[in-house]
Amino acid sequence: MNSKLSEFLSTVAKKVDDYIFSNIKGQPEELYEASLHIIRSGGKRVRPAILMASGLIFTNNEEDLIPFAASVELIHTFTLIHDDIMDKDEYRRGVKTVHTIWGEPIAITAGDLLFAKAFEIITNDDVRKRIDASRLAWAAHELSKATATVAEGQALDMSFEKRKWVTLNEYLRMVYMKTGALLEASAKIGGIIAGASPENVRLLGEYASKIGIAFQIRDDYLGLYGREEVIGKAVFNDIRRGKKTFFVSLAYQIGDDELKALLDKLLGNQSAPREELEKLAMKMESAGIKKEAEDYMEKLMGEAIEAISSLKNTLNNEYIEILKELAIFIVKREK
Amino acid sequence: MNSKLSEFLSTVAKKVDDYIFSNIKGQPEELYEASLHIIRSGGKRVRPAILMASGLIFTNNEEDLIPFAASVELIHTFTLIHDDIMDKDEYRRGVKTVHTIWGEPIAITAGDLLFAKAFEIITNDDVRKRIDASRLAWAAHELSKATATVAEGQALDMSFEKRKWVTLNEYLRMVYMKTGALLEASAKIGGIIAGASPENVRLLGEYASKIGIAFQIRDDYLGLYGREEVIGKAVFNDIRRGKKTFFVSLAYQIGDDELKALLDKLLGNQSAPREELEKLAMKMESAGIKKEAEDYMEKLMGEAIEAISSLKNTLNNEYIEILKELAIFIVKREK
Repeated sequence: MNSKLSEFLSTVAKKVDDYIFSNIKGQPEELYEASLHIIRSGGKRVRPAILMASGLIFTNNEEDLIPFAASVELIHTFTLIHDDIMDKDEYRRGVKTVHTIWGEPIAITAGDLLFAKAFEIITNDDVRKRIDASRLAWAAHELSKATATVAEGQALDMSFEKRKWVTLNEYLRMVYMKTGALLEASAKIGGIIAGASPENVRLLGEYASKIGIAFQIRDDYLGLYGREEVIGKAVFNDIRRGKKTFFVSLAYQIGDDELKALLDKLLGNQSAPREELEKLAMKMESAGIKKEAEDYMEKLMGEAIEAISSLKNTLNNEYIEILKELAIFIVKREK
Repeated sequence: MNSKLSEFLSTVAKKVDDYIFSNIKGQPEELYEASLHIIRSGGKRVRPAILMASGLIFTNNEEDLIPFAASVELIHTFTLIHDDIMDKDEYRRGVKTVHTIWGEPIAITAGDLLFAKAFEIITNDDVRKRIDASRLAWAAHELSKATATVAEGQALDMSFEKRKWVTLNEYLRMVYMKTGALLEASAKIGGIIAGASPENVRLLGEYASKIGIAFQIRDDYLGLYGREEVIGKAVFNDIRRGKKTFFVSLAYQIGDDELKALLDKLLGNQSAPREELEKLAMKMESAGIKKEAEDYMEKLMGEAIEAISSLKNTLNNEYIEILKELAIFIVKREK
């Protein structure tokens, strides 16, 4: 990772975490412990970073952006807590999931609490004094709209589980909803609070939704071609769990009968043998699907970079550079 | 019920339902069906009614209040959907609960969607054009703060299940959090959007939080002394399920050894015989606990009525009368 980007990410993470841990407090203690557990366990704070960088392109007033940066992380975390319940996942970021430790009722409530706190911190007395009220209301709208879209995306993803295959377009739409929409809102909110023009806000959103989709495709990619010792989790997990990834969607769409038959045999098969899975990954590569994924990510990265290169009346262009580096990192990352 | 109050409740219910069903639409259809299921199954729309009446005391502009009235009902419904999952309840309002029909993952997501939509509809372009932005942000803050309080109250209530008994003060605090806070926010938001002064907004909130607590105590009361054919559910259910009600808290606090021993035997005993439960209800009455509950509800009702009687610069006093009738109804209702 580019050192300026890496430095920016750590700086934002520190400030946002400080804000979260000083502001998200209360009783019952168990509920707050459960709510903050996944935030404490790590994470890169990508959404806060995108929000902050997007805002800092247009303002020097970093303080005003922090509560909003915290709020997108709270929304993201609430969706992780609820998703883990639905997927019955036991671990996330190397620690036990919230429902595994505290049980489902507390986990559901912990997610609900973070959701409420996300809106509470961006509308509290202090923020309402400092931020132009119509920009604040606009930001709250982007955040709530994106959160509704994430819920729709989650339901769409679940509906995919019942289907044998989904088209690449259906897959891409779901990924936009589950991942792209909240990144898009993060970038837009940064711009909105910093006083950016509607057109600049739109461009920031376009940038972030594209890299959001690219991020998920790269995840799918590493799930087939990543190195286990680098990514820190088992390769081929997605196939074993029957996930309809970029690769699976495209394989059913353009693969030959042999590839489809192999997929039929392995997809959702928890005990699929490693050598067969490796054969599947190779067959996907020879069918040109790996290349398609690489090309598609390149295309998204290019469009994202083009979008932020079109911003007008910018103040601090070094943050445009950081967002460009972030787009490159997302597509090239090995974990 | 007073006929003006009853007419007002039906009018509000119709308008709010129309608004909800025309505005909460989308894909996947299954998710929206699940989200709207409990709203379709009935309910009195008490929170929207309190919001509308509180606002109409200060404005004739009913249209502006409707999205906010819908939003408090969406928040209320989201908490019902999630609570039913946590309590493993199979029925609500005479229909199967959301998770019973669609499964837990869709039910969790359906609740999350309504939560997001509640904030989306009060911040959308149309509302942002019509409502003063700082009042809108203030209203969003009251709504998010109350929703966080409901989550805290839910966790507190769950923590009570693990304890043998709780004090009356602990019980009252939990009831304020689970029921009072959202009613309080509903009344305040009505006033805020209608342009009421901060002091009037505070008084409206005081009114509604008091009747919220009284509402729950009346529920507890009907769970012991109600008539099954009127309330439409089994009396003594609360005792069988081990709920720490107003009566249980006070019995452990002021009851004699015999009453406490009887409670120890029956509380949480799913197969407790009816005659013993009736004996418990009588013993509570002779210990003065029924009278304490009646006095406490009267006190809350009096304070609620006093609060709205202190409103200044009101425009339409007939809505003060409606809120007074509502306070009386809540304390006197037989179901």
